[in-house]
Amino acid sequence: MFTAIVGSETLRSTLDSVSVLVDECKIHLNEDGLTIRAVDPANVGMVDLRLDASAFESYEADDVVIGVDLTRLEDIAGMADSGQLIDIELDEEIQKLRLRMDGLEATMGLIDPNSIREEPDIPDLDLPATIVLEGRDLNRAITAADMVSDHMELGVDVEREVFYVDAHGDTDDIHLELSRDELIEFDVGEASSLFSLDYLRDINKAIPRDTEVQIRLGDEYPVKFTFPYAEGRGQVTYMLAPRIQSS
Amino acid sequence: MFTAIVGSETLRSTLDSVSVLVDECKIHLNEDGLTIRAVDPANVGMVDLRLDASAFESYEADDVVIGVDLTRLEDIAGMADSGQLIDIELDEEIQKLRLRMDGLEATMGLIDPNSIREEPDIPDLDLPATIVLEGRDLNRAITAADMVSDHMELGVDVEREVFYVDAHGDTDDIHLELSRDELIEFDVGEASSLFSLDYLRDINKAIPRDTEVQIRLGDEYPVKFTFPYAEGRGQVTYMLAPRIQSS
Amino acid sequence: MFTAIVGSETLRSTLDSVSVLVDECKIHLNEDGLTIRAVDPANVGMVDLRLDASAFESYEADDVVIGVDLTRLEDIAGMADSGQLIDIELDEEIQKLRLRMDGLEATMGLIDPNSIREEPDIPDLDLPATIVLEGRDLNRAITAADMVSDHMELGVDVEREVFYVDAHGDTDDIHLELSRDELIEFDVGEASSLFSLDYLRDINKAIPRDTEVQIRLGDEYPVKFTFPYAEGRGQVTYMLAPRIQSS
Repeated sequence: MFTAIVGSETLRSTLDSVSVLVDECKIHLNEDGLTIRAVDPANVGMVDLRLDASAFESYEADDVVIGVDLTRLEDIAGMADSGQLIDIELDEEIQKLRLRMDGLEATMGLIDPNSIREEPDIPDLDLPATIVLEGRDLNRAITAADMVSDHMELGVDVEREVFYVDAHGDTDDIHLELSRDELIEFDVGEASSLFSLDYLRDINKAIPRDTEVQIRLGDEYPVKFTFPYAEGRGQVTYMLAPRIQSS
Repeated sequence: MFTAIVGSETLRSTLDSVSVLVDECKIHLNEDGLTIRAVDPANVGMVDLRLDASAFESYEADDVVIGVDLTRLEDIAGMADSGQLIDIELDEEIQKLRLRMDGLEATMGLIDPNSIREEPDIPDLDLPATIVLEGRDLNRAITAADMVSDHMELGVDVEREVFYVDAHGDTDDIHLELSRDELIEFDVGEASSLFSLDYLRDINKAIPRDTEVQIRLGDEYPVKFTFPYAEGRGQVTYMLAPRIQSS
Repeated sequence: MFTAIVGSETLRSTLDSVSVLVDECKIHLNEDGLTIRAVDPANVGMVDLRLDASAFESYEADDVVIGVDLTRLEDIAGMADSGQLIDIELDEEIQKLRLRMDGLEATMGLIDPNSIREEPDIPDLDLPATIVLEGRDLNRAITAADMVSDHMELGVDVEREVFYVDAHGDTDDIHLELSRDELIEFDVGEASSLFSLDYLRDINKAIPRDTEVQIRLGDEYPVKFTFPYAEGRGQVTYMLAPRIQSS
């Protein structure tokens, strides 16, 4: 059983955060809220999302797992205006999700969860450096790096106490530094890893510009980006595997 | 003879209402104003438009029929700013239309009216149901249906006194209902017909969001959409043939 | 040696004015400011730009010529917000340009100036007619002409004292006239030349709508468009070769 009422923006943020990596996913529902974990086909980028029951206007769910086509569900959720409420109901018998919004009713076929790629185990890594910055600063770094290269280095200069972004192209380079007083939080630690801009560009689409984003970083280790959404009643974590640094 | 001065928006609305169905058309001019009738190449969608002489700043015309390329005339009319007046004059000798707007003069070659597809007879059907709603509500129904299917049903549930829109896709369905108090006018009558969304999508482009649109509907019969424009001095009617319902 | 601080908009206007004609160019730097001259591969359109040292917040340069890829430099300059300052420094040893803006540092490889197409000698023609008008009026004429033809005539009707634009297409024509009182300045002289709209369309992209543009024109002669930018501390001149008039 699952029946809920949710603000259209909360639903859209939830779906968009996952659809930057995968086209379909399993949604785990229980009385506490919903969780989604997914990994892209190349096993490079993972997403781990939770949305608390308190983020909904009303929420009731037994333990159940449903499989959804994200694009189709995003299209339907996109029919609601900002600020409008969406009524969601699961019809387990016919395996359909029913969405109602201001006179419009959409019925969407679900996907057999067993046909969806298995969910990743997102490792609980002990990463030595933690950086908290505004989403817009991360966006700027990724956009700049993307102009000159197809991968970028995230790192911490322990001595100078700066967080840096480095991208080297064939002819042009980008370097960006943020010192302790330009960051919201900064736990200095040895860290330097290289990441694919293909993935960072996609993840960046889902990161709100005006939200605090926590970056956890290590030495040739995966990076984790974590940020709250739905007024703190939801949280998204992306984990991205590093590329091997050739130099 | 034809010479007139018209607001750029009135001219553009006229042309856009017709160009959603055909690329070229005949324009009938006489002392009362202009009329255009056209049918798309597949004989599925028809348009019937009239614009009264009173919608013009100045207007003089003998009985004459001209053939125009709508895209080219739209391009020229698009050179005028909103609120600007356009001076139109027919040069019958060289079969050209001369348009003047703030220093700019465009001369556009006409098309031999005999080379344009014959105009349809738009039948005066006795359709049992009449619905009047805001253009934006019709737009919403068409947009939603278009996400899941390539045709949609328009109908009236006589018992429950609701106007409904239904679209069935391979996996997803859309259903929208508007009851008497959500409609501007509603003459209940037995009606249910299926229409191609290809056509509805095109027609929808020309329907102003903030205008009252009258829908006349029957049982496996064509639908008629009628709405005023040019502050009520013009009127557009679209008629769309139904698709055979397989079920 | 070259080191300077410049407003992002001034830098972008400089680059955009040249990139409408060529992808790479030589920039001549000396203590007075910078100059760029370039001609398109077909030798039809030329640009001659100067930006005075006073247009910079700070400026220091020895005589030096650098070769730049305009698209890449535009991308980097585009990272700065409007109103933001960009710090530019030439590293002659490694032949790179270093740009700094609010924490972001970009290093851009230069191009060997000898590998760039030779700069044109822009002839000092004695053109009989001079017209000064608003950029928006020129824009309107070019946009209109572009709808009906692929070339347009610029000319002066000496008797009637009007500047005119004429474009003849297969079926449609555009004619635009501006008389002395619609122009900012007007030195009447015998003039009528035909130009490619491919080039005019590109040049038009770089002409500010709210700037006075000087047009100098002759009889089957090149046309020159000149306008100030950077609050009058810079100037751009385009010269365009005429097409042979067949009639």
